[in-house]
Amino acid sequence: MHDDHGSMDTPGDDRILARLHDLGLTLPQVPDPVAAYVPSVRTGNLIFVSGQVPFRDGELVATGAVPSESSLDEAVLAARQCGLNALAVVARELGGRLDPIRRIVRVGVFVLSDAGFREQPRVADGVSELLVEILGDRGRHARAAVGCPALPLGATVEVEMVVEV
Amino acid sequence: MHDDHGSMDTPGDDRILARLHDLGLTLPQVPDPVAAYVPSVRTGNLIFVSGQVPFRDGELVATGAVPSESSLDEAVLAARQCGLNALAVVARELGGRLDPIRRIVRVGVFVLSDAGFREQPRVADGVSELLVEILGDRGRHARAAVGCPALPLGATVEVEMVVEV
Amino acid sequence: MHDDHGSMDTPGDDRILARLHDLGLTLPQVPDPVAAYVPSVRTGNLIFVSGQVPFRDGELVATGAVPSESSLDEAVLAARQCGLNALAVVARELGGRLDPIRRIVRVGVFVLSDAGFREQPRVADGVSELLVEILGDRGRHARAAVGCPALPLGATVEVEMVVEV
Repeated sequence: MHDDHGSMDTPGDDRILARLHDLGLTLPQVPDPVAAYVPSVRTGNLIFVSGQVPFRDGELVATGAVPSESSLDEAVLAARQCGLNALAVVARELGGRLDPIRRIVRVGVFVLSDAGFREQPRVADGVSELLVEILGDRGRHARAAVGCPALPLGATVEVEMVVEV
Repeated sequence: MHDDHGSMDTPGDDRILARLHDLGLTLPQVPDPVAAYVPSVRTGNLIFVSGQVPFRDGELVATGAVPSESSLDEAVLAARQCGLNALAVVARELGGRLDPIRRIVRVGVFVLSDAGFREQPRVADGVSELLVEILGDRGRHARAAVGCPALPLGATVEVEMVVEV
Repeated sequence: MHDDHGSMDTPGDDRILARLHDLGLTLPQVPDPVAAYVPSVRTGNLIFVSGQVPFRDGELVATGAVPSESSLDEAVLAARQCGLNALAVVARELGGRLDPIRRIVRVGVFVLSDAGFREQPRVADGVSELLVEILGDRGRHARAAVGCPALPLGATVEVEMVVEV
């Protein structure tokens, strides 16, 4: 994950990466795109980040619907992982830095939900709170959280973002 | 909802608020955010509005899936209420005014749907027609309307928006 | 679809329309909007395209959930058709041209899915690969693909886009 020549995850003089480090968090590597789409696109001063599922070290941290197959707590942690993965994509777009982030603009949270499950906002808080922990007021965003009956790879959560730099 | 010192909902010289008033509509108060996310974020001349559920006077005007638990007509009214709440958020972002709106850019409509329900567009017309009633051509927007098996608090509809000012 | 005075679909000097022509693809006509919303809205150098269902010659090429009612292959073709329809909307916004496209920024793909279906990305590749075939690197976009229990008209796929011009 780290490399000796340090780019993605070495604090250097990037204050946001330093804060991540202090929080004990590590930005994952962004897998090279294997498809016709890409992890992120920058247009003007906005970065659109593709939907992230909760991969950590190559495995999904949670699969299946909430609450029948994945608990609320597991889903919250999965949302947090999605958020970390999205920040890694932003860092990749920004040449390994996060300081250029001016604001997280919008976060879309899709929660694999049983019919009748009503707590998508609590799941989504997993990513929302991560963003504020790391970015402070710059991390406070507009948000839409909804339920889905099915998500890629059976992931419990998928998160996409729009970021102003 | 109104207050004697009038900011959010007193027409003053804001033509859009005056039109709302003429239509007999009242902008609800926007609850203070209690979470890590915020009702809206402005980036450049775009305002991203968080997903709104159909609260009116502190209660959801419709809950449950269409058509088994909520009728089509109830869902249309719920979508309309979501739209009114979204405009209230925009007014809050704009210091109590709506005249600065140049265009509603995009509206996302999530409808709590039974499998097989195909009339998400009719539900979404509840918000689309409201926007045109109030804003005229400036209210004509791009739109995506989809079904969901579960939404926050069991709300029948959730609506998010992007607005150009 | 073509007309002798050539606007929407005659290559002329538009290289992207010429490429479409070479690929044997035809941009469909965009139906006039019959509702309060419109096929697309341009704000600055971004075009937001409304959710497109897979109409071809006035009929949906696929309806019903994947895989119980619509096969994976049918869904991929439906996604491709949605993408073609979205490009037709963009061409309409641009006065019959596609060359002004600088980048497809974001593609949202909603797949009518049985619970447990996990291959929304393969369905979404139907539109992603079309965009790269036609637009090359300009077609490489950020993407979110999710499952839905119900979509407008029972369509198997709905696709929306943000395009930079």
